[in-house]
Amino acid sequence: MSETPVPDRRLSRTDEHVHQTWSNAHDPVLSVASGDVVEFECRDATNGRLDADATVDDVRALAERGGGHPLTGPVAVEGAEPGDVLAVDLLDFEHEGFGVSYFYPGELGWGLLPEAFPDPGVHVWRLDGDVGHFGNGIEVPLDPFPGNLGVAPAADGEHSTTPPRRVGGNLDVKHLTAGATLYLPVEVAGGLFSIGDCHGAQGDGEVCVTGIEAPMTVTARLRLERDRDIEAPEFETTGPFSAFAPGDPVYATTGVADDLMDASKDAIRRMIAHLHERRGLTRSEAYVLCSAIVDLKINEVVDRPNWVVSAYLPEGIFPDGQ
Amino acid sequence: MSETPVPDRRLSRTDEHVHQTWSNAHDPVLSVASGDVVEFECRDATNGRLDADATVDDVRALAERGGGHPLTGPVAVEGAEPGDVLAVDLLDFEHEGFGVSYFYPGELGWGLLPEAFPDPGVHVWRLDGDVGHFGNGIEVPLDPFPGNLGVAPAADGEHSTTPPRRVGGNLDVKHLTAGATLYLPVEVAGGLFSIGDCHGAQGDGEVCVTGIEAPMTVTARLRLERDRDIEAPEFETTGPFSAFAPGDPVYATTGVADDLMDASKDAIRRMIAHLHERRGLTRSEAYVLCSAIVDLKINEVVDRPNWVVSAYLPEGIFPDGQ
Repeated sequence: MSETPVPDRRLSRTDEHVHQTWSNAHDPVLSVASGDVVEFECRDATNGRLDADATVDDVRALAERGGGHPLTGPVAVEGAEPGDVLAVDLLDFEHEGFGVSYFYPGELGWGLLPEAFPDPGVHVWRLDGDVGHFGNGIEVPLDPFPGNLGVAPAADGEHSTTPPRRVGGNLDVKHLTAGATLYLPVEVAGGLFSIGDCHGAQGDGEVCVTGIEAPMTVTARLRLERDRDIEAPEFETTGPFSAFAPGDPVYATTGVADDLMDASKDAIRRMIAHLHERRGLTRSEAYVLCSAIVDLKINEVVDRPNWVVSAYLPEGIFPDGQ
Repeated sequence: MSETPVPDRRLSRTDEHVHQTWSNAHDPVLSVASGDVVEFECRDATNGRLDADATVDDVRALAERGGGHPLTGPVAVEGAEPGDVLAVDLLDFEHEGFGVSYFYPGELGWGLLPEAFPDPGVHVWRLDGDVGHFGNGIEVPLDPFPGNLGVAPAADGEHSTTPPRRVGGNLDVKHLTAGATLYLPVEVAGGLFSIGDCHGAQGDGEVCVTGIEAPMTVTARLRLERDRDIEAPEFETTGPFSAFAPGDPVYATTGVADDLMDASKDAIRRMIAHLHERRGLTRSEAYVLCSAIVDLKINEVVDRPNWVVSAYLPEGIFPDGQ
């Protein structure tokens, strides 16, 4: 891989460069030319409220007084107009040595299995280069990506940072790693691009509602493309797609149901049982590990009336390597 | 990989070894000991009605007078009792040089996008070793698997071969390639295992309702496991997970919606548009190619109210390799 270009511009994560809603009324904090490389310092999803010493009490406090994902930006791209496409070349990610995974009290209804987890949970990871240390000898390969990145919507008002939209936002696409390019449909003049909520790793699905949440510095190139016509985010990627390489052992549980959400829940319930019974993790540890590393795949969506979703666990993360 | 063991027993695909429903009343055509290796000759999903000369008229005829997937078996495993687990070690697959992908008339409601494809479609593939030739220089890596394999259900009666169930059946899990082991919960004495509906390749989702459908010969070991407790199929696999290796280029379209099925439809609609507009395929060719090679992934299922499903196209299949 070629070296990361020297950024043309930098944005620190100080208050004046951070916002916690999507809105086309946020004034740009930086204006760049198409093709410029920008270094974004990003806060973590909790806005620093869960750090390397986080406890479940901190999660309860976070649940009681939330706040949107802190996003660094917005950056205006000179000449961007509605109908254009903003290409975001993701070039580099630097973490700061720790990350946090957590889930909220079940009564709030967040995550795939709130009814199975009434109490909140938290897990602190030590990040060392491209390895995340979970504890118990479990080591997870890291390949960081931004959970939340997008441009401002045309719809006026302040919009929550939680749901993703056609202009991007909280996509949580774990394949947007260094080397990937995300295409976003521009809806307002300048585009108004922002980014944050970085994850050291995440399973497809992000089932407990968090990946390995971590403050990071992201380097990205912003380019306008006018010959492309898209309705929603599209992307190119060349990165690894899983924590396992072809040939590595994987254990999978299935969900067979007439609804994809129910099938997803069944597959993850069974993977949590597998991790608890066969690998000795607590159920809370298993839920967090599923969110960080287990991939949900749609196996088939056409054999009516039953669809199949499976949960894939890379077994190379365990100390015995199998 | 070690050599495939010499089978202990063989089952040809003659009428007396083939059934087209799931039922615990089907007499076993073979009884084996736990650990025996069996070679199964399998017919294709259409029971030979679509061959290397298939046309859309043949698909219309198939739609008018269907019939279940022809399955080879059932095989009784001596000593198997309800509550046991049958482990199926998949060892080897041999195709016969051709495969067929097709989709039914939209009015029948099959497939992910029936409303977008009122007319049926068919595509014949030439299979050469581990490569499937689509035409237009497009070459797809093959890694065969059985679409439909399982044990007999405890529920009496004749059951359709189309929907998968907790005892397996039409799982269409493309990761059950040579080297994988499928675990199935036994519900009746002897287990009564059957297999068929082999695919040379398939994308996660199988969106048009078929993979590369092909007659094949499958070699598998049948083993009882009594220390395992499962509610639904589980599996171990070490095979490749996609038609692309880590580092290969991939293009992806996204669906962002408050329902996983709607998100899946949007992602595939956009991938069909991409293949048509950027790669010059007809929309019918694009639908078939999506079903054979494009993977649907659940990116996130927790950022309420909007979930994200993306469709991943391996670009190495095109003649220019990118």
